[in-house]
Amino acid sequence: MKTTNKSGVALFVEECYRNGMKNVVCSPGSRNAPLIIAFDEHPKIETVVIHDERSAGFFAMGMGQELNEPVGVVCTSGSAVLNYFPAVAEAYYQKVPLVVISADRPSEWINHGSGQTIMQKNVFGKHVRAEVEINEFVEGDLEVGELIEQVGIAFSKATETWLGPIHFNVPVSEPLYEVVEQEITQSIELCSSRQETFLFSDIETKEIQKKWNTLPKKMILCGQIPENGMLQSVLEFFSTDSSVVILVENTSNLKGSLFVHCIDRTLAAISEDELSEFQPDLLITIGGAIISKKIKSFLRESNLKEHWNIGYSFPKMDTYRHLTRHFECSALAFLTELQKMNIERFQTTFGNKWKQLDVLTNDELRGYLQKNPFSDLKVVETILDFLPEKINLHMGNSSIVRYCQLFDPIQSVNYYSNRGTSGIDGCTSTAAGIAYVTPNKLNVLLTGDISFLYDSNALWNDYIKNNFCIIIINNQGGGIFKIIDGPQKTNQLEKYFVAKHTYTADNIAAAFRVDYQRVDSLNVLEEKISSFYQSSETDRPRILEIFTSSEVNDVELKKYFSYIKQK
Amino acid sequence: MKTTNKSGVALFVEECYRNGMKNVVCSPGSRNAPLIIAFDEHPKIETVVIHDERSAGFFAMGMGQELNEPVGVVCTSGSAVLNYFPAVAEAYYQKVPLVVISADRPSEWINHGSGQTIMQKNVFGKHVRAEVEINEFVEGDLEVGELIEQVGIAFSKATETWLGPIHFNVPVSEPLYEVVEQEITQSIELCSSRQETFLFSDIETKEIQKKWNTLPKKMILCGQIPENGMLQSVLEFFSTDSSVVILVENTSNLKGSLFVHCIDRTLAAISEDELSEFQPDLLITIGGAIISKKIKSFLRESNLKEHWNIGYSFPKMDTYRHLTRHFECSALAFLTELQKMNIERFQTTFGNKWKQLDVLTNDELRGYLQKNPFSDLKVVETILDFLPEKINLHMGNSSIVRYCQLFDPIQSVNYYSNRGTSGIDGCTSTAAGIAYVTPNKLNVLLTGDISFLYDSNALWNDYIKNNFCIIIINNQGGGIFKIIDGPQKTNQLEKYFVAKHTYTADNIAAAFRVDYQRVDSLNVLEEKISSFYQSSETDRPRILEIFTSSEVNDVELKKYFSYIKQK
Repeated sequence: MKTTNKSGVALFVEECYRNGMKNVVCSPGSRNAPLIIAFDEHPKIETVVIHDERSAGFFAMGMGQELNEPVGVVCTSGSAVLNYFPAVAEAYYQKVPLVVISADRPSEWINHGSGQTIMQKNVFGKHVRAEVEINEFVEGDLEVGELIEQVGIAFSKATETWLGPIHFNVPVSEPLYEVVEQEITQSIELCSSRQETFLFSDIETKEIQKKWNTLPKKMILCGQIPENGMLQSVLEFFSTDSSVVILVENTSNLKGSLFVHCIDRTLAAISEDELSEFQPDLLITIGGAIISKKIKSFLRESNLKEHWNIGYSFPKMDTYRHLTRHFECSALAFLTELQKMNIERFQTTFGNKWKQLDVLTNDELRGYLQKNPFSDLKVVETILDFLPEKINLHMGNSSIVRYCQLFDPIQSVNYYSNRGTSGIDGCTSTAAGIAYVTPNKLNVLLTGDISFLYDSNALWNDYIKNNFCIIIINNQGGGIFKIIDGPQKTNQLEKYFVAKHTYTADNIAAAFRVDYQRVDSLNVLEEKISSFYQSSETDRPRILEIFTSSEVNDVELKKYFSYIKQK
Repeated sequence: MKTTNKSGVALFVEECYRNGMKNVVCSPGSRNAPLIIAFDEHPKIETVVIHDERSAGFFAMGMGQELNEPVGVVCTSGSAVLNYFPAVAEAYYQKVPLVVISADRPSEWINHGSGQTIMQKNVFGKHVRAEVEINEFVEGDLEVGELIEQVGIAFSKATETWLGPIHFNVPVSEPLYEVVEQEITQSIELCSSRQETFLFSDIETKEIQKKWNTLPKKMILCGQIPENGMLQSVLEFFSTDSSVVILVENTSNLKGSLFVHCIDRTLAAISEDELSEFQPDLLITIGGAIISKKIKSFLRESNLKEHWNIGYSFPKMDTYRHLTRHFECSALAFLTELQKMNIERFQTTFGNKWKQLDVLTNDELRGYLQKNPFSDLKVVETILDFLPEKINLHMGNSSIVRYCQLFDPIQSVNYYSNRGTSGIDGCTSTAAGIAYVTPNKLNVLLTGDISFLYDSNALWNDYIKNNFCIIIINNQGGGIFKIIDGPQKTNQLEKYFVAKHTYTADNIAAAFRVDYQRVDSLNVLEEKISSFYQSSETDRPRILEIFTSSEVNDVELKKYFSYIKQK
């Protein structure tokens, strides 16, 4: 096979493959030519080319998230690598093994007036799990062995236990485009060491049992988790215990008949004087980010006796200010062990109260919405009602993801949202990356106008196909600022927060050859929504842009919450 | 006046003004509400609202560059601030006082599961000249005094001697939107301390004189410099010395009848055996980045006896690998002092040889191009020929800025290009920011298709008006990769380097309500170009997109260079 003449770069690329990386998103550049040549010629690595590195970073992150394996992004030297940073931060907090590979000039040329040259070393600071500098040439067993070891250690930081992004910086000297013949490598992928063998000590077991058995109100709160059938089964076991309530958000991808699925909606229905009955004694938290601000305040104000946080990442994370114990293991391992312990089932009303209220508020929401005018809330309900089975639903950040929390999750739907940093900067590109690696599945992105326009370069590639559908709720600005408390108090609501605008997606769609339809009313929405999902004749994605009135949306949402409260 | 109730934030905003900051580009967010309220209510600070922080960063940088004063960018917490990084790096290397102001959560909430929260401290690493954390509340003279001092020190790093970006991180707690009445501040702007009093010691003077007077071949090489009439006069004085050659690039904004204006064109005409006659003994470098790669190689291979680099920034920068002395002062101060010294005028052919060759190759280029077919080279010539007087010309990175180097600079035109990091990521936004602060001047951006699409969010705001004209040369991909040596050797030229595409700007223009015209031939170009600059009826910018053939462009450029060489 052919590859770059730079032995270190060629070996590095081979080691990336052996450590499980089979996909790379490349952005054009000259300094990264040796990397591009080596990745392109590698027989087992697939490549994608995306120009805008900000979009490329999120696209690759989406791929890595879905494939549950490291995915690379390769760029030239200089400011290119900085455009990856938003995706790197998202990968860090959402725990995705994104592998940034930046070409660089040799260090003797940094800060000496060369073009496309910045100080790339340590550029992501603490937002990567490891950073390694790769030598462009390696000679002899010692150097070869050292490179293999360094790459392996870095990948282990990306793919074992605490997953996350890593950064390889690769200074290369000219000439950059030399190609040599090399024996075809019989790449053998290294064993993954993600197998978990986990056991509590006897003392720990006793302590856990004792606390579990003496605390009558237990809550398991589940943050963002990729679909996980085994975890779901274990949680279903616990959900039949009436002293336990399992709170999930749709991003947890956990659905159980006895789980509480809509936290905000349910919390809104708890009256002041009932509050203490709903407060747990023991809180167990699993998974990533929690969207609901209300549950955060609720738990911070609760009189928690114990809070156990389970997981590898952020051992000192104390979201609810009552952390008593961090267990450094997977949620599945912990709960499976807990299940095997000598634990008792309580007869309390705690769990049932929560579950009943969740069901009740669901019925109320549905009843209420029947009479509801055309608004963001009604639109989200309609979209969720008409959603096909077995799809991936990507929720844009800001108000969309919050609206979606008000509705019970759909059994066969996988929910996605960039809740690592909760930025709007890469929602579309991330969804595009996930759609790219799930060609046989429909991927629906539900997003807002600002998020969509922000990341419109997500459409600037030929890899997105007709399994990718984008629904934009265009309320002419940052709708979130009309929903949250505060901005209304200022003189600056319209100019700075909502930042009202009249831009639309139709021409952006045309620019990138994406099909487009416009909706202005509920009738038209109901008429168009079913056929919208049916594969079009072109192979390109399609957009449905729904226009709602920013004057109505906040009013309707507030009315709904006060309706629930009064009930 | 009204302001935020956070005393530290209110004082900080006042101090920004007192340190010379009169303009702020805000991006919507909630955490930055106290900052937005205080900036908006400040009677002497103007604000702009731009959604995409990447674009906002470059827009503000353009403003700061043109105004020659600090300009702020304000964003919410989380990944938002990361989107400023490309502009921050550009500002660092181009030496523009960009002031990044990021809202943050209080440190006790970092890495505790809150949304839109990353580790913002030190996030720009070495790419800012200072970073300061601002306390949201200050009480008593001591705290007030400390804040004033800290802000002042940081601004001095941005605006005195070595100019560059600085970062204020502002952690604020809820509630965020509280407003209080405050006595109207009689803001008095602090004196700028950019006055330079500079004198060489007697010993230094003697040494400089001695070297100047004994070295018969002297070159003053001028990199990127904003327009500077006084500097131009001093250089004109030296240009009449036949032992001196002044080499300028159009980005130096220095034009003199005896300067060598087109380095690449002139270098290409020097034959192998003449090379040594053109090599200087003494090289003096002033200003920022040099675009020409050819002059870099030429000087590195020259037998330089002395290289003096003048300026405040990067004291150890050794671009040509012969640095003998760095003078930490402005180019103007240095050359003015030099002029006053007891320096002799040589009678050598060195300076004249350079100047003659520059003039000769100009005539040859013009003659050659008369017969040249429609290609990037011909298009650039035509555009420059038809350019109105007294405008700002913004050159996109990659191939455009290189093409422009082949033509003599136009006397009344100011030249701009992001040659700090030489990235394509913010060319349009930077030009938009400069156009915004020069409303009575025509601003023409000449750019490529990739650069334009990359930064199309530059058009997503209402601040750009009809004094902003964009000319896109669309050669369906990264034309630069067909011009430079190397990519042709690989199998990957079309897929990864040129990354050929068929996207166009017409629909992007429509999306952002920008006028648009298309050109496919030289005749049509000549027909449309003059009227294109005439103010349209709308108040929005306009785009002229010129389609050239990627099959022809590289061939024609190479033919031109070999023509020059043969002559």
